[in-house]
Amino acid sequence: MADKRKIIIDTDPGQDDAIAILLALASPEVDMLGITAVAGNVPLRLTEKNARKICELAGRPDIKVYAGAIRPLLRTLVTAEEVHGESGLNGPQLPEPTMPLQARHAVDFIIETLLEEEAGTVTLCPLGPLTNIALALIREPRIAPRIREIVLMGGGFFEGGNVTPAAEFNIHVDPHAADIVLRAGVPTVMMPLDVTHKALTTARRVAAIRALGNRVGIATAEMLEFYERFDEEKYGTDGGPLHDPCVIAYLIKPDLFRGRHCNVSVEIASELTMGMTVVDWWGVTSRAKNATVMRHIDDDGFFALLTERLGQL
Amino acid sequence: MADKRKIIIDTDPGQDDAIAILLALASPEVDMLGITAVAGNVPLRLTEKNARKICELAGRPDIKVYAGAIRPLLRTLVTAEEVHGESGLNGPQLPEPTMPLQARHAVDFIIETLLEEEAGTVTLCPLGPLTNIALALIREPRIAPRIREIVLMGGGFFEGGNVTPAAEFNIHVDPHAADIVLRAGVPTVMMPLDVTHKALTTARRVAAIRALGNRVGIATAEMLEFYERFDEEKYGTDGGPLHDPCVIAYLIKPDLFRGRHCNVSVEIASELTMGMTVVDWWGVTSRAKNATVMRHIDDDGFFALLTERLGQL
Amino acid sequence: MADKRKIIIDTDPGQDDAIAILLALASPEVDMLGITAVAGNVPLRLTEKNARKICELAGRPDIKVYAGAIRPLLRTLVTAEEVHGESGLNGPQLPEPTMPLQARHAVDFIIETLLEEEAGTVTLCPLGPLTNIALALIREPRIAPRIREIVLMGGGFFEGGNVTPAAEFNIHVDPHAADIVLRAGVPTVMMPLDVTHKALTTARRVAAIRALGNRVGIATAEMLEFYERFDEEKYGTDGGPLHDPCVIAYLIKPDLFRGRHCNVSVEIASELTMGMTVVDWWGVTSRAKNATVMRHIDDDGFFALLTERLGQL
Amino acid sequence: MADKRKIIIDTDPGQDDAIAILLALASPEVDMLGITAVAGNVPLRLTEKNARKICELAGRPDIKVYAGAIRPLLRTLVTAEEVHGESGLNGPQLPEPTMPLQARHAVDFIIETLLEEEAGTVTLCPLGPLTNIALALIREPRIAPRIREIVLMGGGFFEGGNVTPAAEFNIHVDPHAADIVLRAGVPTVMMPLDVTHKALTTARRVAAIRALGNRVGIATAEMLEFYERFDEEKYGTDGGPLHDPCVIAYLIKPDLFRGRHCNVSVEIASELTMGMTVVDWWGVTSRAKNATVMRHIDDDGFFALLTERLGQL
Repeated sequence: MADKRKIIIDTDPGQDDAIAILLALASPEVDMLGITAVAGNVPLRLTEKNARKICELAGRPDIKVYAGAIRPLLRTLVTAEEVHGESGLNGPQLPEPTMPLQARHAVDFIIETLLEEEAGTVTLCPLGPLTNIALALIREPRIAPRIREIVLMGGGFFEGGNVTPAAEFNIHVDPHAADIVLRAGVPTVMMPLDVTHKALTTARRVAAIRALGNRVGIATAEMLEFYERFDEEKYGTDGGPLHDPCVIAYLIKPDLFRGRHCNVSVEIASELTMGMTVVDWWGVTSRAKNATVMRHIDDDGFFALLTERLGQL
Repeated sequence: MADKRKIIIDTDPGQDDAIAILLALASPEVDMLGITAVAGNVPLRLTEKNARKICELAGRPDIKVYAGAIRPLLRTLVTAEEVHGESGLNGPQLPEPTMPLQARHAVDFIIETLLEEEAGTVTLCPLGPLTNIALALIREPRIAPRIREIVLMGGGFFEGGNVTPAAEFNIHVDPHAADIVLRAGVPTVMMPLDVTHKALTTARRVAAIRALGNRVGIATAEMLEFYERFDEEKYGTDGGPLHDPCVIAYLIKPDLFRGRHCNVSVEIASELTMGMTVVDWWGVTSRAKNATVMRHIDDDGFFALLTERLGQL
Repeated sequence: MADKRKIIIDTDPGQDDAIAILLALASPEVDMLGITAVAGNVPLRLTEKNARKICELAGRPDIKVYAGAIRPLLRTLVTAEEVHGESGLNGPQLPEPTMPLQARHAVDFIIETLLEEEAGTVTLCPLGPLTNIALALIREPRIAPRIREIVLMGGGFFEGGNVTPAAEFNIHVDPHAADIVLRAGVPTVMMPLDVTHKALTTARRVAAIRALGNRVGIATAEMLEFYERFDEEKYGTDGGPLHDPCVIAYLIKPDLFRGRHCNVSVEIASELTMGMTVVDWWGVTSRAKNATVMRHIDDDGFFALLTERLGQL
Repeated sequence: MADKRKIIIDTDPGQDDAIAILLALASPEVDMLGITAVAGNVPLRLTEKNARKICELAGRPDIKVYAGAIRPLLRTLVTAEEVHGESGLNGPQLPEPTMPLQARHAVDFIIETLLEEEAGTVTLCPLGPLTNIALALIREPRIAPRIREIVLMGGGFFEGGNVTPAAEFNIHVDPHAADIVLRAGVPTVMMPLDVTHKALTTARRVAAIRALGNRVGIATAEMLEFYERFDEEKYGTDGGPLHDPCVIAYLIKPDLFRGRHCNVSVEIASELTMGMTVVDWWGVTSRAKNATVMRHIDDDGFFALLTERLGQL
């Protein structure tokens, strides 16, 4: 397929990261160049292992998985086992992976891939803290103009934050990295909580995935059932927000989402609002537009796509 | 009426302030002890005059109006003539007031009233920047436990800000004053943009007020028609948000509003988010609850109440 | 004496404040219009009483003493009993004052005096946190151009701070007030720790004051002996820094001091450096010059003046 | 020599960096494992070339030079051509280097060297912004306990800053990197402006170096004469401060310096004091001690050592 979209997923699985990876591996529109792991939902030694577990679940042990940053740039790592469980992938019983972790550092892989591939063809899909992406941009600024697009899950604005009142987890864990990435001059699409909190894993939707009957469908349903408890209890909703797969769905079917091109600035000066993504949705400042911030999702269309694709694996 | 609620309105009229004053003067549930003016939407010399114009419009030249702070505590005064017009009350032709401005300083009036009236009986209704209230609390901390309640219009959270992406006008003009007030230990009800942006002056609602046919009704309709242009253009809505009358409506009919008791902290450390009211709606921090933040309004009920009352004047 | 310099001392005695008051009362060059007390070294109820004690010690019960701010603008009051003792004036046994505290609020006295006296004739001498001065400038901005000069003790730069590594006590207690005062456009002379740490109450100097033999000399020596322990122990010096009298000495004999006109900005954004006075001594920024910051003192000349004057009381 | 001290110099030459390198290469006590270049005084492409020029000037083309970070972590690179000249090494005519730049990235060299060499044997000597060191600590936290000591030139406290009133150049260029390094738990010695501004390149001292008569002595004198103009003009001194060689002199003869073990925290929250090294010299905070901050230097001894050693090359 001549026009497959080349991507690198940067991730800290995490059940929703895992489902995003599955969605990508199930989608012919996407050419996965590699997966880079970062510390986030759980420590790096688990996120890189979880990435490999998921590749094997998808029957794709050929995918190259790289370990990256073990810590955020400045702040002490904060993890989210209360959401994801001790392993980061609680829910299904997945075997220990047998496929190897690549020897190269994730940051080097990102840089070298961007320098080797044709400029403007590789999309970065960060699903966790932006540490790896920031480190790549610091180490080799020449990659910035070669990135086709960064499509990231992170931030929140009209929805507020989820880890503090003002900050979403991925950005809060490494706000300095987010600041670097959002000021790098790279075309960026942001999937904030404003979108993902509308993509709820309702009982009906999870049942539909389970009913696929294949190994991936059942494991996904088990992941979702574990993962959704936290937000169901917090927000009193039927189902939890399915954050990360929104990034991959956007690559495949962008018109599931609507948003606005505007300025996003990351708060790094004040502890009260640390890691907040300040979105100038109404254009009231003179700050330059640097990201397309999504706010609306066709959630039924999104789950229909996800379910259909998971059935292919 | 034995249980009239004694209030002081602190205000920077502003058309919506004016309508809040009219609503209070039209409502037998409320005993207006005085009106204190502050610099905000327009400079102090206009806000105190506008307060007197409105008292005269309501046929109440007996109301005592006091001038207070001419500037915010630390920051340079920012006004909003683009919303309210040069006079702050653009729209109707209102005569220059003949009732006098009181000689006493607004801050002294607030302090002395709170010390003279029975403790726990006086409610403060700030409709503008919180400079006067903060100055009273600094000058005489003993008033804090004597205030029945502060019911204020200000802030915003899930709605974002209106003057910057993160900050609402009243709080942004004097964030330090807001910080002082919200940390004063006084029972506080906050009407943020999350409520007031749902109280839209639709064409139908304005027409109903104009149709009252009395002088107040017509002047109110004229004020609304001038005032709503700004937000209609910005947000593309039918009508603009009617902020300040929500405060008075809450005193009369609190069940028009629903919200949550939680922590509100004001950002004063970072210019990016300066004046943001960070609301811990989901209880994710250990910060003590200090305000009841309203989020929902029965907007039809609100306009029905307003229209009915304006008809009494 | 036609050209006596009219001053208001704003103070939080404190032994060094007390000695500054004594020096002023002993000096014919100075016309003391009143003393205003502020919370600082000890709470307000003690500072206003201490001011009256010292007036009586000087045989001047006619001096008008006013109580002002009981708390800083934003921050919780921090006091310094570890330096000054529980009363703020530990050392000598001074009788309870019989002269009355004036009824007027200190801030009102400052404002009214500046509006009544000929413009450009009244000098403010703040020896404590700048809360009263800031409140006067907020309440009545028209006083700013009528102030002849503000000569204050506060801040530190090349000497660092004394209460935190970066901040001096007076500024740290109310940094927001200091920010307001330093941006008010009033000619300002600042006596920072850079000067006062060179004005050491050595054993020989204290002995010379004690040897005056009068009541004031003996009480001063007793104050100094109590007060200097703290800094002697901290810094390992012979004697402690005699901060506040430098302000009065400057009025009488300015050539005891040398400094530079430059920009001083107060840190109010970061807790780490909160209350630091950032002095652009070398002119490396484009920030406008707003204060004459003293750095050098003829310390022998200073103590000679002080001792001679105390002998007159 | 069994106990040569193994060092890596991380540097942004800069004339004073160059002289530090020369001093190290002239000193048998030191075993130079490699030189890593960083952007700072001038851009990276110049600093790495200048490092090689100096190795060749010293007759040591065998030294391995690595290029590292081309930009600070978060902030835009600020350089100092006004001090160092366009090349960074203005003054002498030095030929283009013929020795190669190593292919490995400086950060990788630092990490691999620390992992390969015996733990606790390698000292890092940062003479510029701390970007490379911070990046190494982020990428491979296991190096931290293997570093024998970091001896760095940077910061200032009682001397203030040199690029802003509060911040010294090296720290100001990359304050976030400095924050990372100072919180890494590595034994650290800091040579701030408080020391280096006492190490003045007086005319007599420069003449003594020139009089060595060898190529290195003459080139050093030419570098010093160019470099000292800036600070001589600014401070009105005879000679400018010779910053970076203090780091190497400390390795050779530590008793030339005296300081104190205390807490150093880097300001990264406020633009006013951005990059300030807040030194708790007097132990007034509870912050843990993390660096030995030098304050005093035997400047004659320092220049005697420097001159003697430069004569050996």
